[in-house]
Amino acid sequence: MQPLILGIAGGSGSGKTTIAHTLIERVGGDRIAFAQHDAYYRDQRDIPFEQRLRVNYDHPAALETELLVQHLRALRAGQAIELPVYDFAQFTRAPQTTQIAPRPIVLVEGILIFVDPALRELFDIKIYVDAPADLRFIRRLQRDLTERKRAPESIIRQYLETVRPMHLEFVEPTKQYADIILPEGGFNPVAIDVLVARLRAMLELHQ
Amino acid sequence: MQPLILGIAGGSGSGKTTIAHTLIERVGGDRIAFAQHDAYYRDQRDIPFEQRLRVNYDHPAALETELLVQHLRALRAGQAIELPVYDFAQFTRAPQTTQIAPRPIVLVEGILIFVDPALRELFDIKIYVDAPADLRFIRRLQRDLTERKRAPESIIRQYLETVRPMHLEFVEPTKQYADIILPEGGFNPVAIDVLVARLRAMLELHQ
Repeated sequence: MQPLILGIAGGSGSGKTTIAHTLIERVGGDRIAFAQHDAYYRDQRDIPFEQRLRVNYDHPAALETELLVQHLRALRAGQAIELPVYDFAQFTRAPQTTQIAPRPIVLVEGILIFVDPALRELFDIKIYVDAPADLRFIRRLQRDLTERKRAPESIIRQYLETVRPMHLEFVEPTKQYADIILPEGGFNPVAIDVLVARLRAMLELHQ
Repeated sequence: MQPLILGIAGGSGSGKTTIAHTLIERVGGDRIAFAQHDAYYRDQRDIPFEQRLRVNYDHPAALETELLVQHLRALRAGQAIELPVYDFAQFTRAPQTTQIAPRPIVLVEGILIFVDPALRELFDIKIYVDAPADLRFIRRLQRDLTERKRAPESIIRQYLETVRPMHLEFVEPTKQYADIILPEGGFNPVAIDVLVARLRAMLELHQ
């Protein structure tokens, strides 16, 4: 029996990751193969470090989506994959990989996962987390201030120069492909209960 | 154990009714108490017929929402209700009622069910069906042309004079209260499967 492949998209700061982690916690990490699109940022070992800093990491071209597509097809066929590990400090792929075994549920998360048609058509359930833009910016600001100790001006500049224009050009238009839109971001227990029920129903078929 | 109360809102022509009927068919009509807000249009027997024609039936004031609130509280308390029957040809309530027994799931459908706070807070799950405005108009046009044999000019006039402005003023702003938004209207089998799983999980608790 093929796994159920679930995609969770939505803008930066929408709460996608919170939803993904809550689903894994509620349904069981041993039943879900989890892949973040971020892990598929392109290998840049042949590119000088200074040049890596100038790459637009909010653009679909920064990601090796064709590898994620291959991996989802492999998981669907019951094969394990070698998930890339990205070194966010060095802006390139780390030498090691993480082996991910096939599971009854495959969960993929990322802002741009509904852009590429070959990737999009692999999802059985497409979820778009649609928090308002001001709340998304505020969450991103809070995260970057506390977890990454960045200056507010630098966070604002990056948001206005790449995050926001790329969101409007690439992320927001893919909302039209969603089967379900979650308007409350990651803080939506009613929607979580609904998704958990669907995933548990899938697991019962696998028993 | 209290029932799960599900509200399905969304504009005219969004496909709410299709979703409600599909859920009832999939989960079982004997497990669901179903109420349409339309059944609660105000009794107008004391108002001359000509005057009834001039009422704005897309405005929240046209509905006896306080009676629906009473009825949902009764169903929640395990009591049967007498659902009003509306005579759409006479623009007033019919003399008879339909008895609705309490069930583990209560399903309420209507364009304006998330407007009134007392009604809104009774829902355990709030779903907003969010089809694009042009597609909603086209479905309404097709329905009124075939089922009601109305002239296109009359349908367009009513749409521009009341349906559309009332939608923008009252219906669309209640999207913010939804737990889940369904972007594809009634033709969304993936979302139906997700909702059915949630309702069946509720029924298992009742067994």
